[in-house]
Amino acid sequence: MIYQSAITVPTSGRGMYDITAEVAAAVAASGAQTASCQVFLRHTSASLIICENADPAVMQDLEAWMSRAVPDGDPLFVHTAEGPDDMPAHVRTVLTQTSIYVPISEGSMGLGTWQGIFLWEHRLAAHKRQLLVTVNH
Amino acid sequence: MIYQSAITVPTSGRGMYDITAEVAAAVAASGAQTASCQVFLRHTSASLIICENADPAVMQDLEAWMSRAVPDGDPLFVHTAEGPDDMPAHVRTVLTQTSIYVPISEGSMGLGTWQGIFLWEHRLAAHKRQLLVTVNH
Amino acid sequence: MIYQSAITVPTSGRGMYDITAEVAAAVAASGAQTASCQVFLRHTSASLIICENADPAVMQDLEAWMSRAVPDGDPLFVHTAEGPDDMPAHVRTVLTQTSIYVPISEGSMGLGTWQGIFLWEHRLAAHKRQLLVTVNH
Repeated sequence: MIYQSAITVPTSGRGMYDITAEVAAAVAASGAQTASCQVFLRHTSASLIICENADPAVMQDLEAWMSRAVPDGDPLFVHTAEGPDDMPAHVRTVLTQTSIYVPISEGSMGLGTWQGIFLWEHRLAAHKRQLLVTVNH
Repeated sequence: MIYQSAITVPTSGRGMYDITAEVAAAVAASGAQTASCQVFLRHTSASLIICENADPAVMQDLEAWMSRAVPDGDPLFVHTAEGPDDMPAHVRTVLTQTSIYVPISEGSMGLGTWQGIFLWEHRLAAHKRQLLVTVNH
Repeated sequence: MIYQSAITVPTSGRGMYDITAEVAAAVAASGAQTASCQVFLRHTSASLIICENADPAVMQDLEAWMSRAVPDGDPLFVHTAEGPDDMPAHVRTVLTQTSIYVPISEGSMGLGTWQGIFLWEHRLAAHKRQLLVTVNH
């Protein structure tokens, strides 16, 4: 059996957005007990990560590390027509994930105590991001 | 129901190779309508990414960033017997993906408008790369 | 059909731990012939990779590259309460994988000749790491 549903996440620019509750709702709607859940992001300038969800400073530090490793406006880049943050957004996406897998056990996501699912918006401007959740059970 | 098929991608050395059409053909052959598709690469010196497929400069910039972050011939590396590009190829693979997930909706891949699936050959020499596509529906 | 089982991996601190045999045992127990296998790690300061399993120097070089790219005690980080290796562990996790996909063909994992599955402990101290293996067949 397969369940599939769409999620739209409006972002207000670069940063992490906790989507754990949205994914949990899709899993609950699927009725699955033991299953594999996949969350897929339909974009190339935002990405998905599983990360520590307790201290907001973790998000701040992740962003700081990534901004230093893949700086906006890097003269290395040729693809600059869409702005100084566009090519860095593609690199950040490739270094992280376009899809996230979560196991389902006894009807719930088998995340560890400190694991949350986050959408990482890499563009500076606000965007509407589309996701597809698929549950195989 | 599960469908599985093999794909071989000949590469002519370092660079990205668009395999979206090959994966789409496997999905079509599966007959799946709503499904989960996984593409797996059976190598440790090449990898898979989903990336912007419109401007070839994006590929050029990704390669430029990675070449700077993980330079060939880095004196840091001990594993050099297979050439100056071998250990960098393993690091690049670990920083990207060995498998790519794509959701299937209404018989087609649920990729976003600008998403393509690429094999990233990290070795300088030509290789024959083997992939396995699995569709759970 | 879905099979799920838990694996606990005790680590003795930072480094790679080959878990290929443990995953293979779960796959064998599932009885699956053609299938999708997902290995999920329930932590945010350790991760999973598929990497070359022949030369231990590859692991040493991966660790050396990552230690240079994401140094312990980096003054960039604000989240330092849990030690100088904690925030680097979160960054390393985000740059690698929290789950690994492996296709199953004819009852065995479809890994390439040189591919092994490794748990990468990013913390300096010993930990007990919990994994969940799910096989969809």
